[in-house]
Amino acid sequence: MITTPSDPRRAELAHVRATNRAVVLRCVREQAPCSRADIAAATGLNKTTVSSLVSELLERRLLREIGMTGNRVGRPAMMLTLDGASYAAIGIEVNVDHLTAVAVDLAGQPVLSWRRSFPGATERGPRSVTAVAALARRVIARTERDGRQVLGLSVAVPGLVDPHGRVSDAPGLGWRDVDVVGDLTRALREPGFLVDVGNDANLAALAEHRFGPHAGVSDLVYLTGEAGLGAGMIVDGRLRRGSAGYGGEAAHIQIDPAGPLCRCGRRGCLEALAGIGAVVRRASANGDEPDARDGTVPFSDLEPEVDEVVARARAGDRQVLAALEAAGRDLGAGVAVLVNLLNPRTVVLGGHYAALAPWLLPAVDKELQERAAVPGGGGCQVVASTLQRDAAALGGAARVLEAVDAGRLPFD
Amino acid sequence: MITTPSDPRRAELAHVRATNRAVVLRCVREQAPCSRADIAAATGLNKTTVSSLVSELLERRLLREIGMTGNRVGRPAMMLTLDGASYAAIGIEVNVDHLTAVAVDLAGQPVLSWRRSFPGATERGPRSVTAVAALARRVIARTERDGRQVLGLSVAVPGLVDPHGRVSDAPGLGWRDVDVVGDLTRALREPGFLVDVGNDANLAALAEHRFGPHAGVSDLVYLTGEAGLGAGMIVDGRLRRGSAGYGGEAAHIQIDPAGPLCRCGRRGCLEALAGIGAVVRRASANGDEPDARDGTVPFSDLEPEVDEVVARARAGDRQVLAALEAAGRDLGAGVAVLVNLLNPRTVVLGGHYAALAPWLLPAVDKELQERAAVPGGGGCQVVASTLQRDAAALGGAARVLEAVDAGRLPFD
Repeated sequence: MITTPSDPRRAELAHVRATNRAVVLRCVREQAPCSRADIAAATGLNKTTVSSLVSELLERRLLREIGMTGNRVGRPAMMLTLDGASYAAIGIEVNVDHLTAVAVDLAGQPVLSWRRSFPGATERGPRSVTAVAALARRVIARTERDGRQVLGLSVAVPGLVDPHGRVSDAPGLGWRDVDVVGDLTRALREPGFLVDVGNDANLAALAEHRFGPHAGVSDLVYLTGEAGLGAGMIVDGRLRRGSAGYGGEAAHIQIDPAGPLCRCGRRGCLEALAGIGAVVRRASANGDEPDARDGTVPFSDLEPEVDEVVARARAGDRQVLAALEAAGRDLGAGVAVLVNLLNPRTVVLGGHYAALAPWLLPAVDKELQERAAVPGGGGCQVVASTLQRDAAALGGAARVLEAVDAGRLPFD
Repeated sequence: MITTPSDPRRAELAHVRATNRAVVLRCVREQAPCSRADIAAATGLNKTTVSSLVSELLERRLLREIGMTGNRVGRPAMMLTLDGASYAAIGIEVNVDHLTAVAVDLAGQPVLSWRRSFPGATERGPRSVTAVAALARRVIARTERDGRQVLGLSVAVPGLVDPHGRVSDAPGLGWRDVDVVGDLTRALREPGFLVDVGNDANLAALAEHRFGPHAGVSDLVYLTGEAGLGAGMIVDGRLRRGSAGYGGEAAHIQIDPAGPLCRCGRRGCLEALAGIGAVVRRASANGDEPDARDGTVPFSDLEPEVDEVVARARAGDRQVLAALEAAGRDLGAGVAVLVNLLNPRTVVLGGHYAALAPWLLPAVDKELQERAAVPGGGGCQVVASTLQRDAAALGGAARVLEAVDAGRLPFD
């Protein structure tokens, strides 16, 4: 956005125009196909302003005309829709042993989805960002070869991210105090578009809120079922990250002080009882419940182990079913804390939880009903994510589209 | 606000004017004394618009002129301030055994503070609302006799309040499904100003956010230390109540499944361990820790008991000091859950907690530091409320001023 401190009035007008442009874009995204008159009616902007903004957006290929319609009351009108072909928003998730990259067009339709292995926990900060940058360059090159301009790139990291784009701690990656935005911007040679980083749970919540079957719900909590456990919170329609960006740390809610040891040193934390590592351990433990510090290597992805648990549950293995029910009860105790505090409409179980949901959800629901301060959990529904395991990467792309919604266009 | 469905354009203009009027009022509240030119510079509105809005606000006695100033660069200008003398916002808290009424002027300065006893738990819904209405009428009469016009009235209730102003459950009052707004509006004979009801913790958080020493902090949690325990949450600068208005139910966060029985039927809930009733019980229990169902009558105000605990703590009674430290640790465990999820800048301990804070706070802090996912608790500070025990009633008044901030004026 142009801001000329010496001429506040011009800056103000540029700001008004950017805001109105965003209003028009959002209106078309929600109501397409629609005419200029429809936009004026829906937004309260006058027709001259709408025409001028639409012209600019057509020129930038953010909108396109799809022909006249006569199938309405009144004069035939030229109908508009988002121009899906010209732009792409990129999201990359850094997981403990793989990177996921997605690109979506302006309307949120997927145009690319890649996964490649990534030795996360064995490398250290700067080199890992180099690997992320290498993947980003390939995605950007492919996107541009397909004739799309990149709107921005946002990276999801399983760790604490401060408001300045520094990852202060991502234990699964061995990253401490890594300037992801700075390193990536330099590695991409100041690309001129938005480069951003966010916590994986936060971005996954954003993806559910924009692309999932519960899109648009005002209050939604996403729980990551990856190597770690974290919460992303949509409150009153927006992602909330707390005063320093560190909200959503649900892993170490203590469910039972007499429970198994957690990697944090205390006992019975939600992650130690019902994180994916704990679920796998409990299902494989022949009845006793080992500590989080025993058994599996910390911070591996656990995909083969989860597949094995799912296969045994499908086969009706009683020990596995009992373990999943017990873990589901503990997960439900954690969900109840979130529900009683935040009163969300929807809690989404993401990552590996989605594959385990058929066995976890009944126990989660039962525990939630028992612990909810309001009958029925205040109207809350607990569901499995349907975004496969792409939610965090899709959330990166959603972050970029959110910036466009707010009026921020590349090369503005 | 005037809305004429047949003329959306006029409605739109009325809306713009109301919004701009609110912008001017807020600007003067924050920056007074200031001139019309100052307002134009600070808000980005043009000078003609500002002059017209200021004229209207002077006429309605929401602003007043306080004389020319020459003590500045440039021409002398007429300075403006809020007109404190002409309006009042009223808040009433319904506690288990008393009602508190406050009135503040437009600038938030207190103009009235009353307390009267109220046999809350022994009466039932409709009659209790009658008692609230009787007090409200007296406050309104006094306010009007002092030459102030009432901007609105908001009532704080220790219980679950739905978005339509119905109290679905307030166990301390014996209220279930009481239409407080409807009953009160009828009892006051459709008074023409805003009549509203809210949860006591939510309104107390609003009061801290507007009137307290941490006013304006973007993320703040208030914990009620009354007969019950509840949380009010300011997130990203606004009170958040969840999808159905039931957020902030912190009482039954389970701290220890092996802990004392709670009135909810489970064990070791935050309220059973560290609610005011529990603190009093623990301090009086000669070392053993009785259940929440034993001992004191539920839902009495406990003011004499708290005074006794404070006196014994001041006198250095070791058993009381040990009990307060233990209760403080448990309270800290609950605060840690809030801090890890919401990452607030400030947690305010309200109600009776404020009097007990010198002995509770060190243990709360210690436990929080041990349990915080981010070193230093993500920058969070736990403090005692300084609003005496008027926070919830003041929050009712803050609610009314918030409506004015949003452009809602009485008799508009």
